[in-house]
Amino acid sequence: MNKLYLGLVHYPVCNKNGQIVTTSVTNLDLHDIGRLAVTFGIEKYFIIQPQLSQQLIVQELIDFWHTGGGKNYNPHRQAAFSKIALIDSLESCLAEIAQTKKTPKIIVTDAKIYPHSISYEAMRQILVENDNDYLLLFGTGWGLAPEIMAQADYCLYPIMGTSDYNHLSVRSAAAIILDRLCGHNN
Amino acid sequence: MNKLYLGLVHYPVCNKNGQIVTTSVTNLDLHDIGRLAVTFGIEKYFIIQPQLSQQLIVQELIDFWHTGGGKNYNPHRQAAFSKIALIDSLESCLAEIAQTKKTPKIIVTDAKIYPHSISYEAMRQILVENDNDYLLLFGTGWGLAPEIMAQADYCLYPIMGTSDYNHLSVRSAAAIILDRLCGHNN
Repeated sequence: MNKLYLGLVHYPVCNKNGQIVTTSVTNLDLHDIGRLAVTFGIEKYFIIQPQLSQQLIVQELIDFWHTGGGKNYNPHRQAAFSKIALIDSLESCLAEIAQTKKTPKIIVTDAKIYPHSISYEAMRQILVENDNDYLLLFGTGWGLAPEIMAQADYCLYPIMGTSDYNHLSVRSAAAIILDRLCGHNN
Repeated sequence: MNKLYLGLVHYPVCNKNGQIVTTSVTNLDLHDIGRLAVTFGIEKYFIIQPQLSQQLIVQELIDFWHTGGGKNYNPHRQAAFSKIALIDSLESCLAEIAQTKKTPKIIVTDAKIYPHSISYEAMRQILVENDNDYLLLFGTGWGLAPEIMAQADYCLYPIMGTSDYNHLSVRSAAAIILDRLCGHNN
């Protein structure tokens, strides 16, 4: 059985002007995507963040929901945070996953279409039929840096609605992509 | 052509103990669901909030993105906020929509299955084939009050992933539901 991991990248990502930056953490990215991770059977949800000051904030949030007041206040939220792992880089993330089996295949999304772009239906089939592990990466800020896009094994098509507006939040994109790849449209 | 409206209900909703309360506004509910509204061709996204102090906060956010610094900083976000309308009750919301045609049919979601529960595929067909207007309501807090559930014309099935965990954020639920009802799984 293959495993699907998520990674939320805070570095290297693009800013508004295409420069490579480190973004700060958004609390609801942890909550919302952690809750999606439990819903869709994700193995682990990595917060990829190299900045020490930001790591301390993430760790404080994780601790609150693992062992602090959050545990008693809302056990469902504790379950969501139990999926979250803080890590300093994509390389460390790949190495940690590789410890359990082998280096995972990387899946990304982008607003553009690439030579290795793939439909959700085709990607879903690959997830079912192969026993590789997979790491689905989401970019914060204005999106994943070109060096990560070049490293990816698969790039999912942009999510299109009924207009040409293609500016969803990373939380909304993660929800739709996980539903398309792992959900049951009942 | 029918129109689909969204409403985010802050009253009447349930709290953790099933009591009817008014919830406070979450900034990212405006951003994330506003961006979804543009993506999926939603007519208008109503923030249903009766508390004056909370209405002032919502209005300040709307003003910032309509005409304030936000307009120049990020025009895409301005587009998202152009979908947002602040209103004091579900009754006022229904009355405002009725001004343009007639009272819309109400669609809700819930963690339980009801006699009038409906699949996403069936609801999608109804949206395509009928020329009623529709108002899709989302509850904040621990969900819509029973009086709203009883008033609904359609109740969508709970969103199920691969586990029995059914505790998505309202933002994630809105993303998945709109994609299932209006998206193109490319």
